[in-house]
Amino acid sequence: MKKISVLGSTGSIGTQTLDVISSHPEQFQIEGLAAGSNSELLIQQVHTFKPKIVSVGTKELAERIAHEMPAGTKLYYGDEGLIEAGAGSDAEMVVTAVVGSMGLPSTLAAIDAGKTIGLANKETLVTAGHLVTALAKDKGVRLLPIDSEHSAIFQCLNGERMDDVDIITLTASGGSFRDLGRDQLKDVTVENALKHPNWSMGAKITIDSATMVNKGLEVIEAHWLFGLPYERIHVLLHPESIIHSFVQFKDSSIIAQLGNPDMRVPIQYALTYPERWNASSPKLSLAEAGRLNFREMDYDRFPCLRLAFECGKIGGTAPTVYNAANEIAVARFLNREISFLDIERIIEEALNSHNPVSNPPLEMIQESDLLTREMAGRL
Amino acid sequence: MKKISVLGSTGSIGTQTLDVISSHPEQFQIEGLAAGSNSELLIQQVHTFKPKIVSVGTKELAERIAHEMPAGTKLYYGDEGLIEAGAGSDAEMVVTAVVGSMGLPSTLAAIDAGKTIGLANKETLVTAGHLVTALAKDKGVRLLPIDSEHSAIFQCLNGERMDDVDIITLTASGGSFRDLGRDQLKDVTVENALKHPNWSMGAKITIDSATMVNKGLEVIEAHWLFGLPYERIHVLLHPESIIHSFVQFKDSSIIAQLGNPDMRVPIQYALTYPERWNASSPKLSLAEAGRLNFREMDYDRFPCLRLAFECGKIGGTAPTVYNAANEIAVARFLNREISFLDIERIIEEALNSHNPVSNPPLEMIQESDLLTREMAGRL
Repeated sequence: MKKISVLGSTGSIGTQTLDVISSHPEQFQIEGLAAGSNSELLIQQVHTFKPKIVSVGTKELAERIAHEMPAGTKLYYGDEGLIEAGAGSDAEMVVTAVVGSMGLPSTLAAIDAGKTIGLANKETLVTAGHLVTALAKDKGVRLLPIDSEHSAIFQCLNGERMDDVDIITLTASGGSFRDLGRDQLKDVTVENALKHPNWSMGAKITIDSATMVNKGLEVIEAHWLFGLPYERIHVLLHPESIIHSFVQFKDSSIIAQLGNPDMRVPIQYALTYPERWNASSPKLSLAEAGRLNFREMDYDRFPCLRLAFECGKIGGTAPTVYNAANEIAVARFLNREISFLDIERIIEEALNSHNPVSNPPLEMIQESDLLTREMAGRL
Repeated sequence: MKKISVLGSTGSIGTQTLDVISSHPEQFQIEGLAAGSNSELLIQQVHTFKPKIVSVGTKELAERIAHEMPAGTKLYYGDEGLIEAGAGSDAEMVVTAVVGSMGLPSTLAAIDAGKTIGLANKETLVTAGHLVTALAKDKGVRLLPIDSEHSAIFQCLNGERMDDVDIITLTASGGSFRDLGRDQLKDVTVENALKHPNWSMGAKITIDSATMVNKGLEVIEAHWLFGLPYERIHVLLHPESIIHSFVQFKDSSIIAQLGNPDMRVPIQYALTYPERWNASSPKLSLAEAGRLNFREMDYDRFPCLRLAFECGKIGGTAPTVYNAANEIAVARFLNREISFLDIERIIEEALNSHNPVSNPPLEMIQESDLLTREMAGRL
């Protein structure tokens, strides 16, 4: 019986993680669940999975749902609650599926407590890759990627030597607007942006796919997860999202991971690694798919991806600014305050007015994050 | 320094093996070379690679080239010569690149002598898979596949557990006539048949690609190499030959190996396994390839593949008959004695008139082989 905590249990990755766990009820025990504001779903989850520790976003919410908790359940809230539900639990593995940079302290705490990490929170590595990977190494903790692209790379590296790797390539569907030119992007609506061609995901990540910020964050994440310089991380347009990513080795051989777009596959892989268990997910038939297409990435069409590579190479606080500016810009776009193209403008302006600091400690990362958010709200 | 013998050194796989070895001269030492009749090329190879043991097809040929051998080189001939150049040498690894069923005794001898096998001779496993795999297991000898499809599967299984495998799929280009219907196959010529769309290979294997006998032999080979029942070995039409083969695991994840069609890659992988060394082969760009196509295999269009699955499931001497009838039929086709469609007719008739024997010893395999060849010459 594998003991698991899920931070961000009511989000897209969180619910799918619990789906996977439900389909192998004899193999998993849920120790902790943490959610933000969706208390209704969280209460259902608590009654189904019977965690010992539960956390919600705020004190008010905790007080409101306290009487719904089964006897003996410990209820926490806020940033400390996230830490309790993960690091403070008896879980061997903590799935960090909180969206945004607020996932960082709880991930660091879980690593510090020696928990294996099922990493779905991109911002952890994007903003603090140097701290997270150093701490994980120090504690002998494994970071198991849950993102489909990083899981693909991780699977392709099975049994291989990192010294033999030449290039890793992340595939990108191109998002909702992949077939529009830049001049057609001016007047796109929130509704259009939320229609992702392949994946069913949360709103923020769907917008991030359309701007290619999502791929940019993945590039930075891949840099830290696999320890490769940015020159050896490529991005390829692959509209069907069937090849999830691939590794080219020095001998020119390529190993790729493929499947239908279904996040439950990488989630389950992280949960069962190094084993592979049966899955109910429909199996990919390449004959049915018929055809896979590939195009060079166009960094003029997708400037946010170019900016991500630039930020990644600069390092320090630059990726934090990139990420924070994007979070605010996407929220403003979803709130219909700004246009789609304003998102990249805000990211670029935030970066231009920032003086990056190398090897920042956690406090400085959080300060850069906060300052950027304030600024990005005004840009 | 890795000591290697190459049996069949003047053929397509043999020369490419020596190409690979030439590009890493500090890492390899050639111990033995064996060829059939191409004495001119063999003599060049002997002077370049300085093997201690050399073998040619016949006594006459050995006598004719004896004076061209450097001092101290031991010269043999015939079936015993093949065994001397492999099993009798100081090589750690023997590359068995002899074409046809004559490669079997020398492969068995090399396994018996504890040599790692770089297996390019399909007939070894097709006709005597039960003997070869049992002996390899007994001697703790590794069979490293050199065929691109089996090397692909082997690479995809790196670091994985065989228990987690669901299905392996061999891809097939469809050969020279893949876009012709059965009614268009009646009058095709030897010249047309020899124009393989993707791979530059020997004449026999190019014809075997057009009839799909090659894929049939590969299916039987895969059954023995990976220990999977025939129901879990699939074949998929993939005209570009870029995905060389793939493995689908129980969790529905697919791992595939890709590359440009270049036999030097799987050859080098076998030679350097478990490491991967730099290769001069041009690297695959999926953006340049642009598009990969897949179609269900049509077993009515390619009846030889259906026959291979049937033979494989029957087992015993049936695959030997399949292979021997095909060898004779292909030779007769290349000799312009019979038509292209006669190849499958001869295989089917040979199989229909054979009573298969289970678990045949080597002598019975050789007897079935001989009898089938005689019969197939008259069909």
